[in-house]
Amino acid sequence: MTEFIPPGTRWIDLPSPFPMKRGGELHGARIAYETWGTPNAARDNTLLILTGLSPDAHAAANAGNAAPGWWDAMLGAGKPIDTDRWHVVCVNALGSCKGSTGPASNDPRSGEPYRLEFPELSIEDGADAAREVLRALGIERLACVIGNSMGGMNALAFLARHPGVARTHINISGAARALPFSIAIRSLQREAIRLDPKWNEGHYDEDRYPESGMRMARKLGVITYRSALEWDGRFGRVRLDSDRRDDEDPFGLEFEVESYLEAHARRFVRNFDPNCYLYLSRSMDWYDIGESCGGTTDRGLARIRVEKALAIGVHTDILFPLQQQQQIADGLRAGGAEAHFLPLESPQGHDAFLVDFERFGPAVSGFLDSL
Amino acid sequence: MTEFIPPGTRWIDLPSPFPMKRGGELHGARIAYETWGTPNAARDNTLLILTGLSPDAHAAANAGNAAPGWWDAMLGAGKPIDTDRWHVVCVNALGSCKGSTGPASNDPRSGEPYRLEFPELSIEDGADAAREVLRALGIERLACVIGNSMGGMNALAFLARHPGVARTHINISGAARALPFSIAIRSLQREAIRLDPKWNEGHYDEDRYPESGMRMARKLGVITYRSALEWDGRFGRVRLDSDRRDDEDPFGLEFEVESYLEAHARRFVRNFDPNCYLYLSRSMDWYDIGESCGGTTDRGLARIRVEKALAIGVHTDILFPLQQQQQIADGLRAGGAEAHFLPLESPQGHDAFLVDFERFGPAVSGFLDSL
Repeated sequence: MTEFIPPGTRWIDLPSPFPMKRGGELHGARIAYETWGTPNAARDNTLLILTGLSPDAHAAANAGNAAPGWWDAMLGAGKPIDTDRWHVVCVNALGSCKGSTGPASNDPRSGEPYRLEFPELSIEDGADAAREVLRALGIERLACVIGNSMGGMNALAFLARHPGVARTHINISGAARALPFSIAIRSLQREAIRLDPKWNEGHYDEDRYPESGMRMARKLGVITYRSALEWDGRFGRVRLDSDRRDDEDPFGLEFEVESYLEAHARRFVRNFDPNCYLYLSRSMDWYDIGESCGGTTDRGLARIRVEKALAIGVHTDILFPLQQQQQIADGLRAGGAEAHFLPLESPQGHDAFLVDFERFGPAVSGFLDSL
Repeated sequence: MTEFIPPGTRWIDLPSPFPMKRGGELHGARIAYETWGTPNAARDNTLLILTGLSPDAHAAANAGNAAPGWWDAMLGAGKPIDTDRWHVVCVNALGSCKGSTGPASNDPRSGEPYRLEFPELSIEDGADAAREVLRALGIERLACVIGNSMGGMNALAFLARHPGVARTHINISGAARALPFSIAIRSLQREAIRLDPKWNEGHYDEDRYPESGMRMARKLGVITYRSALEWDGRFGRVRLDSDRRDDEDPFGLEFEVESYLEAHARRFVRNFDPNCYLYLSRSMDWYDIGESCGGTTDRGLARIRVEKALAIGVHTDILFPLQQQQQIADGLRAGGAEAHFLPLESPQGHDAFLVDFERFGPAVSGFLDSL
């Protein structure tokens, strides 16, 4: 699985054993991370970025890897997350296949990949692993923890489980609990993978790989990451040119939107491990910050202590809808934070934070500049 | 496929050959229909109902079949579509497997099911077939044509291709053209069926049947037929009782919403023919009333001549979103109709017309009472 890992990736070793929230423990596990900027003398300028399901830790170009990252427009000298001022750490999620230990990694007990022998993964485990990265780097305090999408869940779990570490928080298109519509979508994505005979209860290899299942899962993902509004303007009812169509296939690709989904799926299918996908996807369904305190989601949020917070969402997001970011801001405010809710009019849906830098740039820099 | 056909179904023979819009023709084809009420002396009290993708012609109990139909709350004596006043005809769509000729029917040339040898099916073919039902029943004029969902597309095609037949029109959660988000969803549903090895290029049978593909397609359908809002209230994050869970399956059903999808899928999978599903689904993607006049969708709508029209939609519908019913009302008004757009606050999404009779009942009866 080394081909998934960007050059310049660095690692910390997790404490061994590393206990998992739902039972079991990891031995010899590690977390991939990258950094930008430098800690200041007071060591109070570090930001932690927690990512969505699929990205690696290479959020932007840096000394170890000059290639642009998935958040290049947001992160760098003079950019909204200004690395002249901030020391930034981005962590690849526990359970991923992009450098951190996950179901595709070798189980040291057997020398073989964990596959479905990996312990049940929860959002809270990801948060605990990120805490260990900071400890290993000698970072006691964070100026801010920033979480996108699934990372927004990880960030809330981080704040709840490790009080006093982060002064402030930016939650981007995240959620304090999974809602049934999102659970339904993710459940169907997992079913697509599991129904593919080549998934083979997790025992696939490069030659016999659940490509169809992954393609279905990714296409459904892309449908829910973007928005109907964006696609009306972008694709409308435009057909593919005849030379891009297979006339022999009566149900083959015909519309541009179908070709767009196909291209997205092709890029993803062999670049993300199916078992890792299943584990990370399920961890989101399980997440409800209220469960950590035996209470409601609102109560779980109100137990968090941060000085300031910003929850950003997008009107067209159907996967992590706007009311979920509103709930985060309201809940953190109930806990005493100066918390703001910022709904944006981006047409790009859940993925807007990856593309609509005109709106997300000022939103994030405005908050960071105020610190 | 006879098990799909409700008792009491009646048929008319289509003219043979029956030419199809995109080429080819049908021989010996027929259309299933049912009726309620009786024509009056002036023969001006007939309503035609065109259905969504999956329903049969048994919209409500009648003399031939006392079982409740899929629109029982809307259709009958004293109901919103009052059969004491109206003579109602409901047609099973051409291409369906619920009585009308479709890909699951026998091709008279071979004596075998058409399967993928069925000619390409368009929304316009369904409209022309409905016109032939009226002709066979000796009905020259309709008081109103009512179309739901796909039937809303069929109804607009009917009005455009057979001017002067219908005086008025009710379009319920329909559309004058397919949008890319809906195309993407339907394309993925078709891909799920086609990826199932048991689909076998359309050559399945009862023993070797694309059950997994149909299950995926139906679940994705149900996700887009209902709404996140409804599910938040209905399911929240409620888990299945342990006796309804399979502890051996680490990715098995856990949340009520997953079980709900599974139950829906199970009911559907063996009750709708996969090839018919593919044909009807694709016909919706192809539909744009603008193409019939070589112009825009708005122009296509404005060429329709009806006296009055009502386009009803639902705020939570993501498959046929509200702006599509607004477009229908605006377009018909531009063509001279007294056309109204009625957005409803139903939480049930696209399927609201099948369940939210409190809102849809008065909306439909109010229009019909005004005629």
